[in-house]
Amino acid sequence: MTTQSIGGKPTAQPTKTLETFENPNQARDFHIHMEIPEFTCLCPKTGQPDFAIIYLDYIPDQTCVELKSLKLYMWSFRDEGCFHEAVTNTILDDLIAATQPKFMRVTAKFYVRGGVFTNVVAEHRKAGWQPLPRVELTQFESQSNIRG
Amino acid sequence: MTTQSIGGKPTAQPTKTLETFENPNQARDFHIHMEIPEFTCLCPKTGQPDFAIIYLDYIPDQTCVELKSLKLYMWSFRDEGCFHEAVTNTILDDLIAATQPKFMRVTAKFYVRGGVFTNVVAEHRKAGWQPLPRVELTQFESQSNIRG
Amino acid sequence: MTTQSIGGKPTAQPTKTLETFENPNQARDFHIHMEIPEFTCLCPKTGQPDFAIIYLDYIPDQTCVELKSLKLYMWSFRDEGCFHEAVTNTILDDLIAATQPKFMRVTAKFYVRGGVFTNVVAEHRKAGWQPLPRVELTQFESQSNIRG
Amino acid sequence: MTTQSIGGKPTAQPTKTLETFENPNQARDFHIHMEIPEFTCLCPKTGQPDFAIIYLDYIPDQTCVELKSLKLYMWSFRDEGCFHEAVTNTILDDLIAATQPKFMRVTAKFYVRGGVFTNVVAEHRKAGWQPLPRVELTQFESQSNIRG
Amino acid sequence: MTTQSIGGKPTAQPTKTLETFENPNQARDFHIHMEIPEFTCLCPKTGQPDFAIIYLDYIPDQTCVELKSLKLYMWSFRDEGCFHEAVTNTILDDLIAATQPKFMRVTAKFYVRGGVFTNVVAEHRKAGWQPLPRVELTQFESQSNIRG
Amino acid sequence: MTTQSIGGKPTAQPTKTLETFENPNQARDFHIHMEIPEFTCLCPKTGQPDFAIIYLDYIPDQTCVELKSLKLYMWSFRDEGCFHEAVTNTILDDLIAATQPKFMRVTAKFYVRGGVFTNVVAEHRKAGWQPLPRVELTQFESQSNIRG
Amino acid sequence: MTTQSIGGKPTAQPTKTLETFENPNQARDFHIHMEIPEFTCLCPKTGQPDFAIIYLDYIPDQTCVELKSLKLYMWSFRDEGCFHEAVTNTILDDLIAATQPKFMRVTAKFYVRGGVFTNVVAEHRKAGWQPLPRVELTQFESQSNIRG
Amino acid sequence: MTTQSIGGKPTAQPTKTLETFENPNQARDFHIHMEIPEFTCLCPKTGQPDFAIIYLDYIPDQTCVELKSLKLYMWSFRDEGCFHEAVTNTILDDLIAATQPKFMRVTAKFYVRGGVFTNVVAEHRKAGWQPLPRVELTQFESQSNIRG
Amino acid sequence: MTTQSIGGKPTAQPTKTLETFENPNQARDFHIHMEIPEFTCLCPKTGQPDFAIIYLDYIPDQTCVELKSLKLYMWSFRDEGCFHEAVTNTILDDLIAATQPKFMRVTAKFYVRGGVFTNVVAEHRKAGWQPLPRVELTQFESQSNIRG
Amino acid sequence: MTTQSIGGKPTAQPTKTLETFENPNQARDFHIHMEIPEFTCLCPKTGQPDFAIIYLDYIPDQTCVELKSLKLYMWSFRDEGCFHEAVTNTILDDLIAATQPKFMRVTAKFYVRGGVFTNVVAEHRKAGWQPLPRVELTQFESQSNIRG
Ligand SMILES: [Ca+2]
Ligand SMILES: [Ca+2]
Ligand SMILES: [Ca+2]
Ligand SMILES: [Ca+2]
Ligand SMILES: [Ca+2]
Ligand SMILES: [Ca+2]
Ligand SMILES: [Ca+2]
Ligand SMILES: [Ca+2]
Ligand SMILES: [Ca+2]
Ligand SMILES: [Ca+2]
Ligand SMILES: [Ca+2]
Ligand SMILES: [Ca+2]
Ligand SMILES: [Ca+2]
Ligand SMILES: [Ca+2]
Ligand SMILES: [Ca+2]
Ligand SMILES: [Ca+2]
Repeated sequence: MTTQSIGGKPTAQPTKTLETFENPNQARDFHIHMEIPEFTCLCPKTGQPDFAIIYLDYIPDQTCVELKSLKLYMWSFRDEGCFHEAVTNTILDDLIAATQPKFMRVTAKFYVRGGVFTNVVAEHRKAGWQPLPRVELTQFESQSNIRG
Repeated sequence: MTTQSIGGKPTAQPTKTLETFENPNQARDFHIHMEIPEFTCLCPKTGQPDFAIIYLDYIPDQTCVELKSLKLYMWSFRDEGCFHEAVTNTILDDLIAATQPKFMRVTAKFYVRGGVFTNVVAEHRKAGWQPLPRVELTQFESQSNIRG
Repeated sequence: MTTQSIGGKPTAQPTKTLETFENPNQARDFHIHMEIPEFTCLCPKTGQPDFAIIYLDYIPDQTCVELKSLKLYMWSFRDEGCFHEAVTNTILDDLIAATQPKFMRVTAKFYVRGGVFTNVVAEHRKAGWQPLPRVELTQFESQSNIRG
Repeated sequence: MTTQSIGGKPTAQPTKTLETFENPNQARDFHIHMEIPEFTCLCPKTGQPDFAIIYLDYIPDQTCVELKSLKLYMWSFRDEGCFHEAVTNTILDDLIAATQPKFMRVTAKFYVRGGVFTNVVAEHRKAGWQPLPRVELTQFESQSNIRG
Repeated sequence: MTTQSIGGKPTAQPTKTLETFENPNQARDFHIHMEIPEFTCLCPKTGQPDFAIIYLDYIPDQTCVELKSLKLYMWSFRDEGCFHEAVTNTILDDLIAATQPKFMRVTAKFYVRGGVFTNVVAEHRKAGWQPLPRVELTQFESQSNIRG
Repeated sequence: MTTQSIGGKPTAQPTKTLETFENPNQARDFHIHMEIPEFTCLCPKTGQPDFAIIYLDYIPDQTCVELKSLKLYMWSFRDEGCFHEAVTNTILDDLIAATQPKFMRVTAKFYVRGGVFTNVVAEHRKAGWQPLPRVELTQFESQSNIRG
Repeated sequence: MTTQSIGGKPTAQPTKTLETFENPNQARDFHIHMEIPEFTCLCPKTGQPDFAIIYLDYIPDQTCVELKSLKLYMWSFRDEGCFHEAVTNTILDDLIAATQPKFMRVTAKFYVRGGVFTNVVAEHRKAGWQPLPRVELTQFESQSNIRG
Repeated sequence: MTTQSIGGKPTAQPTKTLETFENPNQARDFHIHMEIPEFTCLCPKTGQPDFAIIYLDYIPDQTCVELKSLKLYMWSFRDEGCFHEAVTNTILDDLIAATQPKFMRVTAKFYVRGGVFTNVVAEHRKAGWQPLPRVELTQFESQSNIRG
Repeated sequence: MTTQSIGGKPTAQPTKTLETFENPNQARDFHIHMEIPEFTCLCPKTGQPDFAIIYLDYIPDQTCVELKSLKLYMWSFRDEGCFHEAVTNTILDDLIAATQPKFMRVTAKFYVRGGVFTNVVAEHRKAGWQPLPRVELTQFESQSNIRG
Repeated sequence: MTTQSIGGKPTAQPTKTLETFENPNQARDFHIHMEIPEFTCLCPKTGQPDFAIIYLDYIPDQTCVELKSLKLYMWSFRDEGCFHEAVTNTILDDLIAATQPKFMRVTAKFYVRGGVFTNVVAEHRKAGWQPLPRVELTQFESQSNIRG
């Protein structure tokens, strides 16, 4: 029997609180990219589960978002009803509130519904912040370090 | 025998009406990307079926297009004769009429005809709307969350 | 306006008749592989369109199936209600009836429905026919003939 | 605000009941492949969510599993604690009980945990059933029907 | 015997004439992309066959190039001697003469010769025409609509 | 002007003669795989060009086929009318006649016609020849030796 | 400053002890596949770090290897000198000692050294154990559940 | 027994010293891209190993970084505790100190932790240095030089 | 015996002379891309062979580089000692001297050394030459013209 | 100037001697796979360079081939004239002579010549040696450990 009640004390709980730590190099505009593939919520119309992969790109100011709390935050949507367009904006709003970044972009790629694929991209720029002009270099694609 | 008349009441009908819902974050220019892989129409010259995949990229203003009606709208071309270049522009026109977006791009990728592949890309910008200057970040390609 | 009634005489009609031609090398068991990416029918429950890609692998006996009639045959399902498992078996039955092959395999890969992907594989062997034991060689994957 | 209580009547409920329909071609051993990418359960030790993609390959006997109920069955694990190895075997057991297939294989590919990827494959053969010897043909890889 | 003289009346002939049709949306700058993978000519030095894939990207003005005549035009090079750099420019010149586009780019990717791969890209802009500034959106890569 | 008459003496001519050289290790059953991507002939019905990629896999006996003559042999089909199924068998017949191999397989992958892709595989075994039983090892996929 | 002494109590230690748990379905021969991408040891000749990805495929008998202890076991090689061929056999030996499986295969793919890539595959079968004859089905390749 | 003490004199030692050589073309702004796939350090919280691939893109001024010392420098993090965001900035700082480049970008792609993937990108521009405006050409993707 | 002295007169010799031909369309800024995958030289420190793939992108002015002499030029490095950064700049210098192009970029991707991959990109612009502003179109990725 | 005479004492020389070391687990039939991407020789007809990637798969008996000497052995062909089919058999012969393996397979994939790609596969089995019957498991394809 695979199904069983959850024994003992859970090691963690879903949370709306996003913890942060001090940006180790506040003088430099650098870019943090995170992928959180384990997002699920409920469809507000039908109550059925929805799934997405969430991508976070940001340039921190004074704080960075802590990885483990980011994971628990994503877990917090598991039993909530969420529309695709709205939840992407909400995640961005919550991350802005927690970290006050110079720049932040949230990309949500939802699993197919009705034969249609939907992705949503929302971003925020701190008032007065300007990106450095991009230095465009030839880009090279990575490959595996091993064979096979 | 696989063929059978369609029993009972169909659950939906093709339609030219595109339903919309209120944009949940009208203050922010955000990007919605949708892929509708199940487009088919007829060749106006020969009457034979044509196939394409339709991609929609837009920045909503006050309304977003509703996913299910978008699907039924695409179905509405099933028995119509359509030239590649024209139908792409028509889909864009209909979506503009329904949603009045800040920006919209329709990309149609048609299946091969006569050994030639044809894609058509058409877009629209709301009068006076300007995109925010793009913040160019290093881009990372997603991979599978599983192995195999 | 992209939509228009189909003018003049259509150049072809959907058909249930599969035309054949004489196998040019009946002494040799050889393998013909065909891919027909433009299959669509209707869901018998809901009346909504379904889509699939059909693959045909066979070892002909006295006749081969003619490419153009195969295409028109696939078109004939456009307005019929078909269950996934049943239509795959029906296509195989019809191709057997037309060509009486030594061996035939039909593979149907349906587009996602309800978040679930379904493929069906059905095959037939002529009574008394035995495949030659396979000579297993190292296999090499093809790449593009051009760069970019 | 993206979070909202689920309004009205949900259109469906998770269920342990797997519905079936009559195999349309019981005389032929044919192969049905299904992919269910939206599986999630809980870790029995920590209570945290786990994710997997489930693959089903089977040769039906008298009944086939119905797609929609299969989806609702997979949903039923959402709030249950499951070990990787055990849940894969349970899913196989439940599908055997429902459909009594000639052959069935369940493959579960779990998302990474502790930097380790785990896949589990379990299969069942009906007593006395023998597969036809495989006709080995050259295999060809599908590509996109469109360009780009 | 596979070789045979061509029986009856050929259905089409190679031609240097590029037929056009009226652009269905002349008010909008839209993009047409065509791929013609079946280009072959002769090496002017050795008389041996050369092969390439030709890509056409253009923004039409008053006319669009007709697909079938484009194919017959490409066929017209089959028995001609052509240098890589020159033939790419000639194709562009002929397409400009036929369609007077706002913008046009011809890309030719030649098969390897002497272990070296050569691609040639040539483009034309109508006097006074300016492209709209590009709206840069996150780009998403398409995948197959089926599994396998 | 790209088109020009072919000047001087062509360096080579298409030919039906396949040259061979002595197998350097006749005691060992070894496997030679060749890919000839530049095959074109004419459709016997319409006179229009057809294209294919030809793959040759063989285990030589006393002679091997010489690469350059193989290329000129493939060129010899350029102005001939050929059906897909027939030409594949003819190429195999001609290569058998020239090299009398222990084993030979010809695979022809034709470019799309009427939206349908066709591949043909034909093979030959010398009377009395038996392949060694295959030693099945784990297979590893190659990657690029460079980055990017 | 990124470098810092490790504060507090480490949460885990490398270990040579492989923990196990009871096989949840001992009546069925099922297959567990694990990938451990974070293997590093030292070159016994030069003392420099070596890297590999370790793959484990096994059919458990009475016990399964516990994921977390497997990770800590792999960590235990971090400061040891190991030859490629030897360490792969040692890992297999240790896993056999811990779990006494019906079948086990260890595959190690080492990072390039001297421009040469090396993979090692070693396996073990329990005395008297026979695999069930494989049911060969058409195989389908997974793709992403999302677009982009 | 795979484990053994490291015999004799190690051929090299990890080092914080980055050696350089004179830039062979100081008049030209050119781009050097290096990939160092063998980076490992320790998690400062748990003491457990972390892994990453490090990418270096730079435009040298008077000196270039020497490949072998770069490798030994990366080795120097093997027993140090490092946070993802901080170590990426430290590597950039050290490389700037050693080479005083016109431009430098360090990209670190860390292995998954807690189901979350993290990449960090940091860059530096010499005071007063301006990149040449990029000449944007059509880009072509490389493929393998061999078949299979 | 595979090794043999080279018989007769070699058909070609390595050379430092790059031959050119007249640019067939000097009025138009067009782009020529060439890939030369067969570059090898010697490491100046150790005398051991090095390998790279060389990519050439240029906009010709009055002359184009001739393909065959380009190949023989690349051969000329076979017995020379070359540092990665220096040889890339030298190839660019030699090609500039021969063709005086409007624009030229040389990209060298070297095979792994010491576990590190190195690519070098160098470019040249003719004094006073300005690229036309790029017309940015949607880009489409090519796929194979065949199946399998 | 990139070209320079090779200074000092070369660190290694090409050699026909293949060094070996004792097989660390002679009781077990295990599989070693090696990829040597840096093979070049000369065409015996024209004297021009040829290139290939060499793959080695073997089951050692009492000795294994030493990686560094394998590399130097491959270097030894750099100035020799070699036919494709012959050199592959010679490499296999030399490796057999050096290691007396239970089983060995050499695969050579040559770069394109005359538009034709050639691969050669040759193998050897020790007299009386039988492979264990293969345990066929579901195979899973590896992916990158990082994102991007
Ligand atoms: Ca990797
Ligand atoms: Ca792989
Ligand atoms: Ca996925
Ligand atoms: Ca392929
Ligand atoms: Ca590509
Ligand atoms: Ca694509
Ligand atoms: Ca498709
Ligand atoms: Ca595929
Ligand atoms: Ca390569
Ligand atoms: Ca690439
Ligand atoms: Ca895959
Ligand atoms: Ca992707
Ligand atoms: Ca490959
Ligand atoms: Ca391509
Ligand atoms: Ca191709
Ligand atoms: Ca990538």
